[in-house]
Parts: sequence; C-alpha cells; structure tokens
Amino acid sequence: MHQSFDVKGGPKVARRNLPKLRRAITAAGLDGVLVPHEDEYQNEYLPEANERLAWATGFTGSAGAALVFADHAVLFVDGRYTLQARAQTDPELIEVRDLVAEGPAGWLRTEAPEGARIGYDPRLSSPDAVQRLAEAAAARGASLVAAAENPIDAAWTDRPPLPKALVVPHPLALAGESHADKRARLAKELADAKLDAALVTSPASLAWLFNIRGGDVAHSPLPLGAGVLHADGKAELFLAPEKVTPELRAHLGNAVAVRDEAELEAGFAALAGRTVRVDPATASAWAFDRLEAAGATVSRGPDPTALPRACKNPVEVAGARAAHVRDGAALTRFLHWLDGAIAAGEAVDEIGAAVKLEGFRSASEDLKDLSFESISSAGPNGAVVHYRVTTKTNRKLKRGSLYLIDSGGQYPDGTTDVTRTIAIGRPSREMRERFTLVLKGHIALARVRFPAGTTGGQLDALARQFLWAAGLDYDHGTGHGVGSYLGVHEGPQGISKRLNETALRPGMIVSNEPGYYKTEAYGIRVENLQVVTEPAPIDGGEREMLGFETLTLAPIDRRVIVKGMLSAEERAWVDGYHARVLETVGPLVEPDVCGWLAAACARL
Amino acid sequence: MHQSFDVKGGPKVARRNLPKLRRAITAAGLDGVLVPHEDEYQNEYLPEANERLAWATGFTGSAGAALVFADHAVLFVDGRYTLQARAQTDPELIEVRDLVAEGPAGWLRTEAPEGARIGYDPRLSSPDAVQRLAEAAAARGASLVAAAENPIDAAWTDRPPLPKALVVPHPLALAGESHADKRARLAKELADAKLDAALVTSPASLAWLFNIRGGDVAHSPLPLGAGVLHADGKAELFLAPEKVTPELRAHLGNAVAVRDEAELEAGFAALAGRTVRVDPATASAWAFDRLEAAGATVSRGPDPTALPRACKNPVEVAGARAAHVRDGAALTRFLHWLDGAIAAGEAVDEIGAAVKLEGFRSASEDLKDLSFESISSAGPNGAVVHYRVTTKTNRKLKRGSLYLIDSGGQYPDGTTDVTRTIAIGRPSREMRERFTLVLKGHIALARVRFPAGTTGGQLDALARQFLWAAGLDYDHGTGHGVGSYLGVHEGPQGISKRLNETALRPGMIVSNEPGYYKTEAYGIRVENLQVVTEPAPIDGGEREMLGFETLTLAPIDRRVIVKGMLSAEERAWVDGYHARVLETVGPLVEPDVCGWLAAACARL
Repeated sequence: MHQSFDVKGGPKVARRNLPKLRRAITAAGLDGVLVPHEDEYQNEYLPEANERLAWATGFTGSAGAALVFADHAVLFVDGRYTLQARAQTDPELIEVRDLVAEGPAGWLRTEAPEGARIGYDPRLSSPDAVQRLAEAAAARGASLVAAAENPIDAAWTDRPPLPKALVVPHPLALAGESHADKRARLAKELADAKLDAALVTSPASLAWLFNIRGGDVAHSPLPLGAGVLHADGKAELFLAPEKVTPELRAHLGNAVAVRDEAELEAGFAALAGRTVRVDPATASAWAFDRLEAAGATVSRGPDPTALPRACKNPVEVAGARAAHVRDGAALTRFLHWLDGAIAAGEAVDEIGAAVKLEGFRSASEDLKDLSFESISSAGPNGAVVHYRVTTKTNRKLKRGSLYLIDSGGQYPDGTTDVTRTIAIGRPSREMRERFTLVLKGHIALARVRFPAGTTGGQLDALARQFLWAAGLDYDHGTGHGVGSYLGVHEGPQGISKRLNETALRPGMIVSNEPGYYKTEAYGIRVENLQVVTEPAPIDGGEREMLGFETLTLAPIDRRVIVKGMLSAEERAWVDGYHARVLETVGPLVEPDVCGWLAAACARL
Repeated sequence: MHQSFDVKGGPKVARRNLPKLRRAITAAGLDGVLVPHEDEYQNEYLPEANERLAWATGFTGSAGAALVFADHAVLFVDGRYTLQARAQTDPELIEVRDLVAEGPAGWLRTEAPEGARIGYDPRLSSPDAVQRLAEAAAARGASLVAAAENPIDAAWTDRPPLPKALVVPHPLALAGESHADKRARLAKELADAKLDAALVTSPASLAWLFNIRGGDVAHSPLPLGAGVLHADGKAELFLAPEKVTPELRAHLGNAVAVRDEAELEAGFAALAGRTVRVDPATASAWAFDRLEAAGATVSRGPDPTALPRACKNPVEVAGARAAHVRDGAALTRFLHWLDGAIAAGEAVDEIGAAVKLEGFRSASEDLKDLSFESISSAGPNGAVVHYRVTTKTNRKLKRGSLYLIDSGGQYPDGTTDVTRTIAIGRPSREMRERFTLVLKGHIALARVRFPAGTTGGQLDALARQFLWAAGLDYDHGTGHGVGSYLGVHEGPQGISKRLNETALRPGMIVSNEPGYYKTEAYGIRVENLQVVTEPAPIDGGEREMLGFETLTLAPIDRRVIVKGMLSAEERAWVDGYHARVLETVGPLVEPDVCGWLAAACARL
C-alpha cells in the first residue's frame, strides 16, 4: 500500500514534545525558535525524519511554520488548513494564526518579545525569508540567531534515521536526452551568462540534470542531495554514500564526480573566486552563507534547470501519453467497479474506494508509487479542497450525492494526476448545473489556442468565466506543472490568479482543474493533464498558435452534465474526448468494463 | 479646429538642426547627447517648445529617443513607428533602430564610443533610466554626464515660448470631492505610511488633487507645474505666475500656498530632514537629485494620487455618462451623414470625414477640445494602428472597404474615446468575419463579471480568444484607463498582455478595444469605454462580483456583423446595447438622424 489512513499528529504530540523543545531552546542560549515546515531540500513531501513541524506541534499539514518560546507557541497555517490545525492542537498550548495575512514575520513585527534571541536553522529557510524575519524581529528589539544545531534535532531523541534509498539511473529511453547533453547545453548557458558554475539544490533538478531517480520521500522519486554544474560541463554530485552503487557510477561517467553529501561545504572551497548561480527560491540561507564564506561570488537567479526540465522533450511527451493510457485503464476499471457497487447497493466508503483504486493502479507492473495520497471524498468532505481521508473522517458514499476522486500514479515514463466527480445515485439539479459550469471552464482551457509568450495567468480567467458569471469561484489555482516521473507539482509554469511571468512553452505539462466547493455540502473538480503543443498554423489564420493536447484519458461523468448548458462546440469537445478515451482505453480493459466504457463515452 | 493635417517633421529638419546641436554639444564639453521624447512633465502630448526629439531628428511620433554624436546619430522607435521614422529621416544622417529590443541602453552597451562623455538632461529622464544608461555606457568606458544646460535648448534659438494658459478651478459639481477632502484623505495615507510629504509632478495628478485644469498641451486640460502635499494636509502648488488668477487663489484657499514654479528647487529646502514620497515612474532624476541634495529622504513608491484618481467617484461617473450621451449624439450625426454621403456617391476622404466629425462634436457648447487627433483611416490606412492622416496620406473612402474612425472629446464632465469600423459599400466576407471575431472579444469583455482583486491582465485573453482560435491577434493593448476631463490614456490600470499588478476597482474607466489589422489591406477596431461597477450579488450565486457598465453610446455597424457567428447571448448583448443607444441618443438628434439610428439599432 502506498497510502495510509491512520490519524497522525494531534494535541498529544505537542503536550509530549514542546517541553523537550523548550529545554533544548534554553540549552542553546535562545529564547525561542522558528520551526518551518520545509526541510533542507524544500520538498512538498518530507521524509519522516524531517517532519519537524509535526513533531513540535502535532500539525501534519503540508505547509506552515511555528514560533516556539518558553511560555508561548504560535502555529501559522493558510486558509485550507485552519480547521485541521485547530483540531490537531490544544489552544492552551498553541495559538493558531494566519500564515498568509500575518505569518511569522508579521507576528514578530508586533508581538516578538522585546530583546528575545530567536534561533533559526539556516538550512531550512531561504535567505529572503531570513532577512524578512530578521527585520521584523529588529522592529521589536529582538534578534534572529543562526543556530549551530537545530534545537529540534537536539530535542528529538527518537528521531528516525534519514532514508538512504539507492539512487538509480533514469534510462535514456525514458529521459530522451543524455545527462552529458543536458550538462553541455546548460553549461553553455552558464558560460554565455558569464557564470562559472551553478549550485543545484532542488532534488527534482538533480534528478532531471543527471537522469537519476531516488526513493527518499513518498510519492516522488527524488534523490535527496546537491550538485554543482560547472561552465565546462563537468559536475559534482553530492549524495549520502549509502545511496551510491557501481551502476550509478557507471551511468554518471567520468565527468560527474560523486562525493559524500557531508562534504558539500568542503566542496564549496573549490568555488573560491568563481561566480556561482544560486536560486533563492530553492536554496537555503546556509548555501548562500557558506558559498560566500568560501570566497565565491553568488549570482542570485533562477535555477538553470527549471525551465528546460519543465519543457518535456518528445520522448518524455510520448512517455506521458503512454503512462496516461495505462493510468486511464486503471481509473476506468475503478469507475466501472464503483458504478456496479453503488448499483448493487454495496456499502462503499472513502477509504474502501481509495484502496480499490490503488489496487487497480497497482495491477500494472509499471506503477512505482502513487503520485500523492488520493483525495477520496464523499458528499460534504468533497468541499474540503485538500481533504485527506483518515479512519476518523471516513464517510460512506450516499445516493443523491457527489463523490470526488483526485488521484495519480508514478510510472517510469510519466506522472499522472486526474480528478473525476462522480454521480452517486441522482445528484441535485444545483449540483449538475454547477458541475456543468466547472466543465465549461475546463473545456475553454482545453480548447484555447494562444500565441507564444502567453502565461498561465493570462489564461486562468478562461476557466473561471462561467462560474464568475454565476457569482461563484474557487479558491485554488487552475493548473500546476507536472514532472516526468518526478514531482506532481512542479514549476516554474502555472495557471492561476497569482502573478507568474513564465510563458507557457511547448512540452510543458500542466493540469487543468477548475472546481467548485459548497461548504459542508459537496465538492466538484474536473482535472485532466494537458501538454502544450508546438506552434502550428491555423487554416485561414496568419499567426502560429500554441495549444494543448489533453493527456488524461478517462470518462467525464455524463450523468452530472446539464447538456443544455453546453454550446455546440462544447458538446463536440466532450464527444470528441470521449471517442478518444473509448478508442485508446477500450482495447485495454476487460469486455464488461469496455461495455460500460462505451456507454460512459456515448455522445451527449 | 482642434486638429491639423499638415505634414510636420521630415528629413529637412535634421539637415538644418543637427549641425546646430553638434556645435552646442561641443561647446558644452560633451561628445554626445541623449534626446528623449519626454519632457519634464512626462506627458503624452507635449507643448511645441518641448518637442526636442522632433526638432533634432524630424521624427514626430509620440514615443522614441535619440543619441546624437559628432559624426553619428541614432534614432530609436518602436514597431508602430518604424515606417514613419524611416520616412521622416535621411539614412545618411540618422540611423533608425529598435526602441524595445535594443534602445539607447542596449546600443550604448555595445556601440558607445570609448571614453565618450554623453550628456543628459536630468529633468527629462527617470532615475532608473539614467542608471541603466550609465551602466551601459560604463561597459564601454563611456560616461553619462548630467548637463547643466540642455544642449538642445542652447542650440534651439527660435524655440517657441512655453505656453502659459491660465489654470482654472474644476468645479466641485464636476469633481465630486473638494480638494480639501482629497488632501485630507491622502494626507492620512501619507501619515499612516510614516511619510512626511509627497512630491507630485504628474500634471494629471496635480489637476486631480487640487481640482484644477490647465491648457498648456493639446487634447488634455493639464496644468504643467508641480506640487508638494504634506502629511498635515497642507500643500504647495508651483506654477508659472502668469497662469495664476485671483479666482484660482480663492479656489485653493489658505491651506495651499501658490508659488512660482521657478522656486521649486528652493522649496525643497523646507523638506530637509523629512521623508518624501516620489514616484520614479513620473518624477525625473532631477527631482530625486535635488531633494536628496536638500537633505530630504526620498521614499520611492507610487504617486499617492494615482489610484484615487483612477477610481472615479459617483459624481464623476455621472459626468462620464452625460458626456457620453452628448458625444454619442455627435458621433451618430456623423455616421448618419457618412452613410448618406456614401449612398449619394459623394467623394469623401479621411480629412473631410475627420473635419466633419469635429464639426458635429464642436456643435456642442460643452466641447473643450478633442481628446486626441482623430484616427480617420480608409482601407489600407486602417491597418496602421497609430495612423494620423496628413495631406500627404489622405485617402478616399472606397466602396467595398472598411473605414475606421477612432476619436474622442474633452467635455468638462468627462473624456470620451470611441472607435467604430464602418462598411463602405459592401465589405468582403473576410472583412465581416474578422470584424465579428473582434466584436465577439469586445462583447466577452463587456459582459464579464469578476471578483475583487482581478487585474486587467487576467481579463485580456477574453477579448483575444476568438481571434487566437482563428490564428489571429492584435499587437496593442485591449484597454487603457481614461481620466475624468483629463488624460485619455491614464494608469495605473490597464487591460493588456503586459504585467500590471493593479486590480480593477469600482469607478475605474477603461477602454475595451480589441482590433484586427491586415497590413496594406484594412483595419478593424471596436472601442467603447466602460466603467467598473460596484461589487453586486448575482442571483443564485455566493460571491459578489464586479462588472462593467458600458459608457459609450453609438451604433456598431450591423452590416459588418456575420450574425451566424454570434451566440444567442452575444446577439442579445448587441440588441440590448443598441436598444440603449436608441433610447438615450435618439431623443437628442434630429428626426431624420433618429430614423437612421432606429434602423442602425434594429435587432440583429
């Protein structure tokens, strides 16, 4: 099983651990400590050994930060986690506040104990964050102090060891470009920009640059480590020695020196007098400090691998197509099973459905992992955007409701992420109308053509316009980038209200996932992955336009569509999409499933 | 007449003036000089005395810059002016290059004569521009030198005097808020931001803040001068003494000290030790230098009047509505006349039509000026986005073509800006299809509802989506802000592909003007002004949404619409708009015009 439905965290955790942490803070000569959620690799998913925020506070969400003092502790979370944070903490021990509107810096500016020495771990925070926090603390006469040892690590006596999964080559047949070619290409860019080297700290960037994959964190095959790429194309890769095999050394060849990750700081000495690109969005204050201490000149700027990694090459796009056909067959089997179980009056609950779906995916030998913990949400739980089912919250799927299932798989040739909203019995007219508004937005973003230079932010309103016209909206982005057998959430591109200057380029994979959520009632989301297509002329037109090819292949529940609300073009899109689903997935599934799929893909 | 159709500029200008300028450069101990288009007030329209770029080069476009050396001169213009710049300059004397891709800074970085001393007038350039240019020059060992006297002003012996139009009060009945209330409101914002004062250099900001209007530049009633607003609500207004009347002094009262503009620098002395907000987007390097020299601390940031000025109050919105009814009647009379003249086989040319339209507008006693020189373009001239008809380019309106007329008026209660594309005879199927694509985009942007916080950049694609789908686009913004009896192009809001972080707020007036241009064939644009409406609930919805109310009232030519390309909702929008035009404008025009209007506004 790649998922667990146990309840983790909770108020007892802080009752047990905060006293230990406070003793460590005092022992370190500090008055308080900053506890960010992020670890030194800035990943979405952390190894258990790096779940410091959860250890200190009992809050298990995927984003947040805390400030812990001798007599007070404050936990900052964003809107999607407010309820969860309140449920997982004791208000006598921990005050929950807003991460976005206030955050640690806002709180320090008005509430920091005067003169307090507040420790931070420079490996866990970006240099910009440290500067903001230091300025805020200074406004109250307090100071931010780089801690030699993280007080949490000192207090966490039963901390599990860091994982040491073997790092394995990612074959050229799947990567589409050798790491030598990637290094040569990027080295030229470094040289052109008059840079001597780049420090690569993002595990996804390491994975892409060296064509390697790891297994240290759940759901993403990321190799935790660091790398330095030089302007001559040579490189060093810093990994824990336990992860390195002869096969990996052979794959990396002579131009890539494999070194112990513990020697990273020592390795900086070789960069004295050199100009080194470091990305403040992914590298820590520690990396900036240590490079400068080693005599290097730090050039702040984007990780040079971020954009080439986002633009998938034809081999990667072909892999994504293949992974989506395979994944679509698993999802189709699941949807067929679900319909049958509901029709037969079987009791189906969120955990049971998630387990069943994982089973269908796992039947493929190619499945390496799920790409995230499935969001399996029935009725009112569907309105919780980042819902994660546990044994405590598990609900039955009831007739007259909607079931929302957001899930994905990690295959060696591609990463998938798909959401379907399914009619359980006959949903209400309102549910079907709002589903159709969401679907109209999804179709607008699937069909759009656009010129080179267009950003996701410029397209976002296309997906929202029909909801807006009805006085509705959703409080999340419309689309995120997706890696190639890598992270399911990757930049630099995105489709959202947030400012993002990255233009959409051919080969970029993005999700298209508008939604609608009625609190305590139901949730709707329609999500496909789509890849940006090459510029192509349009009959009768004058300019080449980019566009999208939909990768995800699974039926959209026709029973939730109000056909009369779709234009002729929108109906044609749904029919065309379903014809493609039936044609590609149908031959892969069992005859009874295929019969069900044919009905599910019938013309509107 | 508010317009002239004379050919200005041209190669003879530089032949005459460049030698004079070169002597002045040498006399000033310089090797070259930077000649920006902008004057010290950063206006779109300049008084003739400040048309320095036109005087030096003969190029009369509204944007550009030149670098003049002893043996070489380079003129930088953007794409819309490339042809005009080539036509107005002698290639032996002046090299025309790209303003956007290269610009003076890009050129200096690779081409600056080594060691050259290049003069600039710090009153004409922003501090950021000066820094960029200085860094670029330094890369070649050249240096940028602040010139004590602008060599152009020294060489321009027959320079006309600066205009000294009287500055007059803008009545409270039109402004909707007294200048005392405006000053008090902004002063509180300054105090809250811990600022002691703000330097206001933008003439539009002066006009809005003090409820005054001037007459120094064509098409915009701008008072050229400067002001300082203090955090206690008091202010100084610096104007040439010839512009000040007892009536103005009475209007301004005791809290606004009127001083001679020549004393501005001396006035800075009172700001020693104070923190003063200055906007680098509108204030010159000179203002920054002189304030710092006077001992003030400069706080770089947005002009505090920019956002409140953009959000029209209810009195200003009511004024805009009234001005648009009046202006719509004039445009309707013109369109009626044009139809009749074409039907009667009369010879109509671009200048004749522009003069006729000005005549209809001037028949209103309220017209103060045109808001810009009308773009009256027939056939192929319509494809020149910033076309300005002269006696040399004047074309006849021919059957089977499109006539594009973009024009507007300045009325005491509002500024108008409207474009209509008119069928002359029967336009081709392609013309009508592309017109309809443009119209569909216009309608999408007119009908959209959107949540607070949405920027114009997020809505831009709505206006382009139908053209994009056909492989077409237009190379200008979709909408610009418009002042209230002020500039016809005002920020900070805008609807375009350019990054703009300003959210659309109730009361903001923007144009909605998608277009299509087929080079050497025809041009299409549909432009209405629309005002952002207050957040309002939508039946059955959950969230309040902003929207637009269309202000412009004039028929859209039904003969160019391919009805079958419009959805039912789009047809309903056109019919509803035309019903409103007929209802509001019909009663104001003569019976024969009204009869014509009724037919022009018939249901599709």
